[in-house]
Amino acid sequence: CIGSMGPAWAADPLPSWNDGKAKQAIVSFVTRTTGEGSPDFVPPEQRIATFDNDGTLWAEKPIYTQLLYAIDKVKEMAPRHPEWKQKEPFTSIIEGDTKKALEGGKPALMQLIAATHTGISGEEFHDSVRQWLSTARHPETNKPYTEMIYQPMLELLNYLRANGYKTFIVSGGGIDFLRAFAESTYGIPPEQVVGSSLKAWYEVRDGKPVIVKLPEVNLIDDKAGKPVGIYQHIGRRPVFASGNSDGDFEMLQWTTAGSGPRFGLLLHHTDDQREWAYDRESHVGRLDKALKAASKEGWTVVDMHDDWKVIFPWGDR
Amino acid sequence: CIGSMGPAWAADPLPSWNDGKAKQAIVSFVTRTTGEGSPDFVPPEQRIATFDNDGTLWAEKPIYTQLLYAIDKVKEMAPRHPEWKQKEPFTSIIEGDTKKALEGGKPALMQLIAATHTGISGEEFHDSVRQWLSTARHPETNKPYTEMIYQPMLELLNYLRANGYKTFIVSGGGIDFLRAFAESTYGIPPEQVVGSSLKAWYEVRDGKPVIVKLPEVNLIDDKAGKPVGIYQHIGRRPVFASGNSDGDFEMLQWTTAGSGPRFGLLLHHTDDQREWAYDRESHVGRLDKALKAASKEGWTVVDMHDDWKVIFPWGDR
Ligand SMILES: [Ca+2]
Ligand SMILES: [Ca+2]
Repeated sequence: CIGSMGPAWAADPLPSWNDGKAKQAIVSFVTRTTGEGSPDFVPPEQRIATFDNDGTLWAEKPIYTQLLYAIDKVKEMAPRHPEWKQKEPFTSIIEGDTKKALEGGKPALMQLIAATHTGISGEEFHDSVRQWLSTARHPETNKPYTEMIYQPMLELLNYLRANGYKTFIVSGGGIDFLRAFAESTYGIPPEQVVGSSLKAWYEVRDGKPVIVKLPEVNLIDDKAGKPVGIYQHIGRRPVFASGNSDGDFEMLQWTTAGSGPRFGLLLHHTDDQREWAYDRESHVGRLDKALKAASKEGWTVVDMHDDWKVIFPWGDR
Repeated sequence: CIGSMGPAWAADPLPSWNDGKAKQAIVSFVTRTTGEGSPDFVPPEQRIATFDNDGTLWAEKPIYTQLLYAIDKVKEMAPRHPEWKQKEPFTSIIEGDTKKALEGGKPALMQLIAATHTGISGEEFHDSVRQWLSTARHPETNKPYTEMIYQPMLELLNYLRANGYKTFIVSGGGIDFLRAFAESTYGIPPEQVVGSSLKAWYEVRDGKPVIVKLPEVNLIDDKAGKPVGIYQHIGRRPVFASGNSDGDFEMLQWTTAGSGPRFGLLLHHTDDQREWAYDRESHVGRLDKALKAASKEGWTVVDMHDDWKVIFPWGDR
């Protein structure tokens, strides 16, 4: 195939990327692993590429989008739950004090998830997320969340797919939340989405079979859980993995420790003007250990400020 | 695309199927759901087809292949486990009395699985299964187990795929066992295999990252567990589902209860000469409830004796 060899006269597959080391490393890797006769050739069925979502495919500031969904749902459901007026973290959410609500840590978060993500059917949840995404707006840009996505990463997804790579999301976020928009937003079908999950149950309700989401954790697809999620869902080690935080350390480690050509991509948020700049000190998307390890592990660090011509499909923040 | 409309002059996509009601129903369904402009057209991304494995894609008599693997492994491991000489179900296995070993029911089975499927890495298990499959032979036909597959079902898989369907295995068998041969045997890649699973853990062993299989059940992908496994792995209701036992009842029920065109296929083992004949009374692949429901549910029952010209790729038993 002519296109996959990327001859000089072909259209640039990554037009939003500046011509620096990161872009060169990506193009070199794709060319080497897909060119017939290349010593680094990877058979098509092994071309698995995994992408973290929050902070890698879309923005995660000021706070994770899924959490904003849960907060809005709590407010919407509050009139039917008078008991929430005296029950944290709900009381603080209803009073608009998200910070206080989240002081309860993981147990508080799990209560929010249980209240807003469970007891309903998979299809009801899916519809609810899609409905919310169609009206909710980012607090700083006033854009729909599905437009807070990174144009250069969309190009990378397309470039990999055009070269026979199968692209997967591997996110710490909820798998069902992701599946509600991944196909229309990224062209990634539900069966190629891996994420944190709750247990589920099958039953016939009023003569209609449904999957019911249960308030019990099935998998936390973060840190060491990412290789486990990949193993369970994909059943094969990726050759390309990308992330932006310490939650991706093990996924990149496991991916790039495999034999043959491997690619680890670490996206560093360095542009406080056009997006946000954060790493070691951030509560959301903390990047410390993985950044320190990148050079030794041979991972490619993408500097958002230097490597990207534009950030969002509609321009910059 | 010319081929997908199946004009009269095109080669028969299902040459091992007799021209009866079952074949006609399959061809009609595929034609209706893939023809541009057809009122029953199903968009390509929704063309999900699921297949049970034991007794649907390959033979399950006299007993499940995965169990035979576990038995052989116990015998192979026995010299390193002198304590097994006085510990059921291992004692009976070592003494060659499988029937007695299995009298312990599910706890005995779980002990066999724990002993032979866990504590090792995912890659070690994969290699062990492939090694075993390359030498083990079916006790009655003396064929490799990967040749105890149904030629008409291979044709059906190919026919569906040629028409834009994505084919998945959804089996009560172990997901990692299935993934060791599904790609080379059926052309189904690991990421399209759903099965029963154990928990797993990620760790760095001697500087090398590995996935370790743990002796704790993650999902029993059988009966009501099949729709749950489909929901977790595929995230979308199939439009085509096929099975051969009561373990497939809920998968077929959930699939065919969806709106729009749906296909439920139930394979009935009716040929004691060329394969095996069994249903209500069988311990392996018991088929009772699903067979009774087939007519009311609109499922297509495939009669192996009447509908199949040949059974195995190499001929008949
Ligand atoms: Ca992230
Ligand atoms: Ca079966």
